Amino acid sequence: MARNFTGIEGVDVKVISDRNRGALERAQKSFPNILMTHDDREVLRSSHIDAVAIITPISTHYEMARMALENGKHVFVEKPFTTSAAQAEELIELAEKKKLKIMVDHTFLFTGAVKKMKELIDTDVLGKLYYFDSTRVNLGLVQNDANVVWDLAPHDLSIMDYLIEKKPSALAASGVAHINGQEDIAYIVIYFPDKLIAHFTINWLSPVKIRTMLIGGHKKMLVWNDMVADEKIRIYDKGIEVEDKMKSYSLRINYRSGDMYAPKLEQVEALNREAEYFIRCISEDIDPINNGTAGLRVVKLLEAVILSLKSNGSIIVL
Amino acid sequence: MARNFTGIEGVDVKVISDRNRGALERAQKSFPNILMTHDDREVLRSSHIDAVAIITPISTHYEMARMALENGKHVFVEKPFTTSAAQAEELIELAEKKKLKIMVDHTFLFTGAVKKMKELIDTDVLGKLYYFDSTRVNLGLVQNDANVVWDLAPHDLSIMDYLIEKKPSALAASGVAHINGQEDIAYIVIYFPDKLIAHFTINWLSPVKIRTMLIGGHKKMLVWNDMVADEKIRIYDKGIEVEDKMKSYSLRINYRSGDMYAPKLEQVEALNREAEYFIRCISEDIDPINNGTAGLRVVKLLEAVILSLKSNGSIIVL
Amino acid sequence: MARNFTGIEGVDVKVISDRNRGALERAQKSFPNILMTHDDREVLRSSHIDAVAIITPISTHYEMARMALENGKHVFVEKPFTTSAAQAEELIELAEKKKLKIMVDHTFLFTGAVKKMKELIDTDVLGKLYYFDSTRVNLGLVQNDANVVWDLAPHDLSIMDYLIEKKPSALAASGVAHINGQEDIAYIVIYFPDKLIAHFTINWLSPVKIRTMLIGGHKKMLVWNDMVADEKIRIYDKGIEVEDKMKSYSLRINYRSGDMYAPKLEQVEALNREAEYFIRCISEDIDPINNGTAGLRVVKLLEAVILSLKSNGSIIVL
Amino acid sequence: MARNFTGIEGVDVKVISDRNRGALERAQKSFPNILMTHDDREVLRSSHIDAVAIITPISTHYEMARMALENGKHVFVEKPFTTSAAQAEELIELAEKKKLKIMVDHTFLFTGAVKKMKELIDTDVLGKLYYFDSTRVNLGLVQNDANVVWDLAPHDLSIMDYLIEKKPSALAASGVAHINGQEDIAYIVIYFPDKLIAHFTINWLSPVKIRTMLIGGHKKMLVWNDMVADEKIRIYDKGIEVEDKMKSYSLRINYRSGDMYAPKLEQVEALNREAEYFIRCISEDIDPINNGTAGLRVVKLLEAVILSLKSNGSIIVL
Repeated sequence: MARNFTGIEGVDVKVISDRNRGALERAQKSFPNILMTHDDREVLRSSHIDAVAIITPISTHYEMARMALENGKHVFVEKPFTTSAAQAEELIELAEKKKLKIMVDHTFLFTGAVKKMKELIDTDVLGKLYYFDSTRVNLGLVQNDANVVWDLAPHDLSIMDYLIEKKPSALAASGVAHINGQEDIAYIVIYFPDKLIAHFTINWLSPVKIRTMLIGGHKKMLVWNDMVADEKIRIYDKGIEVEDKMKSYSLRINYRSGDMYAPKLEQVEALNREAEYFIRCISEDIDPINNGTAGLRVVKLLEAVILSLKSNGSIIVL
Repeated sequence: MARNFTGIEGVDVKVISDRNRGALERAQKSFPNILMTHDDREVLRSSHIDAVAIITPISTHYEMARMALENGKHVFVEKPFTTSAAQAEELIELAEKKKLKIMVDHTFLFTGAVKKMKELIDTDVLGKLYYFDSTRVNLGLVQNDANVVWDLAPHDLSIMDYLIEKKPSALAASGVAHINGQEDIAYIVIYFPDKLIAHFTINWLSPVKIRTMLIGGHKKMLVWNDMVADEKIRIYDKGIEVEDKMKSYSLRINYRSGDMYAPKLEQVEALNREAEYFIRCISEDIDPINNGTAGLRVVKLLEAVILSLKSNGSIIVL
Repeated sequence: MARNFTGIEGVDVKVISDRNRGALERAQKSFPNILMTHDDREVLRSSHIDAVAIITPISTHYEMARMALENGKHVFVEKPFTTSAAQAEELIELAEKKKLKIMVDHTFLFTGAVKKMKELIDTDVLGKLYYFDSTRVNLGLVQNDANVVWDLAPHDLSIMDYLIEKKPSALAASGVAHINGQEDIAYIVIYFPDKLIAHFTINWLSPVKIRTMLIGGHKKMLVWNDMVADEKIRIYDKGIEVEDKMKSYSLRINYRSGDMYAPKLEQVEALNREAEYFIRCISEDIDPINNGTAGLRVVKLLEAVILSLKSNGSIIVL
Repeated sequence: MARNFTGIEGVDVKVISDRNRGALERAQKSFPNILMTHDDREVLRSSHIDAVAIITPISTHYEMARMALENGKHVFVEKPFTTSAAQAEELIELAEKKKLKIMVDHTFLFTGAVKKMKELIDTDVLGKLYYFDSTRVNLGLVQNDANVVWDLAPHDLSIMDYLIEKKPSALAASGVAHINGQEDIAYIVIYFPDKLIAHFTINWLSPVKIRTMLIGGHKKMLVWNDMVADEKIRIYDKGIEVEDKMKSYSLRINYRSGDMYAPKLEQVEALNREAEYFIRCISEDIDPINNGTAGLRVVKLLEAVILSLKSNGSIIVL
């Protein structure tokens, strides 16, 4: 993040804080002209700083963001926003009162692929959505302070939240914990009005890395494969059409199977774009697409997922 | 099937029955020396026939199989075995009484890939199993008399039933029906003892054809991709090992990432092998691996899936 | 071929000939109503037969085709047409005199992929052609009576001959013989006017099966991958444009990198289409696209390739 | 390179030189404590410097390397070493006289993939080599001062030179120049004793990026695909065996088709390893595998390729 922010016109990175002394020393070497401190409160309370980026373990987000906001600083905070909806709501209220910006690091929203998917959905290229099916698996870094849901799901839930305007109505989640007592495999189903269904596979114990999203609409369907170098988004002119004639006793089903095309995607360094956008939101007083409220919506989904996991996969009404 | 059975030593295919006259005429052209009839009861009651193969809509399996068994014929029947566990149990009992064989067409059990997976699990190459994750999606033939579960899930459930010795303890399923009132997308989670979890994605509305299975064990993990021409099974020497030392406060987690290998698979025409095996089971009085009881286990799972779908994804204890 | 021809309206397959008795017996089982003979001359001289399909080793094509033509029969003959241009020319002349059709089995011309490529080139979608690069490699059946050039190159040369209107001006070929004294690996370069270059890699000793063709034009470029199930043809809106302004001293080069699309290809059984086309060419007196002259052009290229191989890769002017 | 060398124990990067002022300013920002100059002679003649890295256009290599060597500096120089064999020979002689090291930046030799291939060949896992087939194509940066051969071939020729102990005996090359008068597509065939053949496809006008190498031996064959994230090297237990029995009239050919395995490759940053190796060669007086002589061998091949291109693909004896 330091590297990203230093490159932006009008931004002056003043200080980097890390509790790990080794990391701080390495940072000093890379940025000999930036101040280093291992006491984050120094930064959060400083009167010479307008904005902070909080890239720390989830459990510390709330305390740090609150201190920053109370001290008049705009806040960029890693995903997931907070560990509870209550915390997120408190921070949002505080930021509003102080007229400060909160931006939650939903980085994927700034990739060429997600932007293209947003455009395809908003311009009705896909038509009425049928399903949204996401897979994010690999041999993951089993963590001690978070399960696979807190680690991986925020990516896909924030993308879903961005792409789908409808409000989800309910969800259910299943999972198991093989390695250290925290779930390392989980499956989530989210129900929307009009029978739109979303599904998420997240797994820290997969031998292969898979990052795909299938989105099916009644006009077109798409596949996003984030593991290939080119043609990450493929749009299929495929579908099923039902002719519902009054006079016929049975439905007539037609299959459509046409061309596929892979649109050229904007080639951007997403984190860089996001950093620039954070600065622009502050200087031009723009409400970010990934503001505290977006962060809150994702945290609410995460809370419901955890609740469902704890109650053996019960449906949680949202 | 006619072509498969005619090729087997000692088998004499006597008669083919089809209620569709066009199909029967085409069959007559291909097999000018085999008798054709549109009345299946003629076959099922004939005293000149030792065994029948029932390749008909699911709803007819029970009646036809019962008539065949009552008339002293061994029965080969397409999957899924029956539409209810009660029917399956009645047929099994009848076959036992009459000392006749029932074989359910779980064709995949006879592929080189499934045989290799069975071998890898049985010889403990994978180690203790963590998960079993199956995906079978494509732009499917939406059917009027069956949903995607009855159509696609029997394949994967019969493979799971064959590979995993443990008895499943519970399951939950979610799904939606977009096209004609029958589910065209479904997700199934099956729980086993010892935290082994199985998961199935089945979808008739996918623009791409995916047929994969990931099986993760504590020693090795494998991926079966049935859509590639070669190297369908890949075995990864990857995993996570936990050192649980008494003296240390925290677990120590080690990642293992070694070679991958793709074993040569037996190149067989599975249906052909299955047909030969059916004849051998009859002539040598062998109890088939895909006998009525195997068919019944799959039907019981299907019944539970349907029940869960109807009760909004509730957990069904098996 | 017997199966393909029997399915065509108005065609009556009278007799199958094979010098191998086992093959003849198997054929009799599949076609109980067709006459079998191991004496091909019986067929070639019969007065009850209008057309023959010659699916035999290359060295026999000329003799059999000549006898068939002399006896008033239209001829369908496997590729390559003959072992020498002189033979091909004699057969063409004979067919013309007798007003009979010759069709050389350049099956690929009847695939959806090659038809699509022909359309893209003829409608100038690709623009001026830069190169044509073909790879056809696998662990091949090393043959005793032909090297890899006679075995594999006719496929790709006949496709090139069909797609590219220009007459090739020269060629050069390199190869080695590792297994049994016949070349099992060869590389061919063919030069056309206007700097269009064609290149062929053929290899019987490859561990993987590769069947690709890259065709680059100044407007668009395409890749044909015949080993994938879907999206065999991919068209890339990519290229390099040179602005050649009078006033500037140096050329200005622009890179274009746009969308990719994979057109839906006609799903046809090529051999079946070709068989139908053969019958239609006879009944409607059409000159086939794959007539004797097309066969002759391919044989001339093969002769030049062999000559270049024998003279250590020397350029052969065509 | 500056970043790579600064990280090495015992190395003190003193000065960076670039004739481009913008580049120099950006470098100054990244390395505030390193001296910058736009006059390279200042560096090459400085008495405070032990070694230089020459990362400049090919045409400048010889002059700069000579000045550095004359002034007692070890030289690391980008590939290709020089524009002519005569220049390379002169530099090698000069370095020997002065007891200085020359290292040519054949970076690929330091990748996990090439190291693994070297090991597989040296330990005779592949057996007697049949062929070496390399493809390196993409939509390339058409350059004004070099054709595709000088730009891309040094990579693959240096890999071939490293992997194959035998001395090549002859080569031939074909190419065309579509864009700006310099070849942008070329094909190279290199002959070795014992019928080993090497082949190179290099193309700046390809819509897709391909980086593959197939190496076939009589025991095993391998494919290196540098465009995939994992399993870059795949080793196939496939081959053809000839039984040459005295008593039989014809050869008996057996096909072997066994497992495939993808060995785990060392995950290293190749350039980093190479920089460390350069320093170690100096401090421990080691003769580098990529010394001036290795650079010379590659330049000699490049010269022969250019000669063959100019003489319409004639064979050049080496």
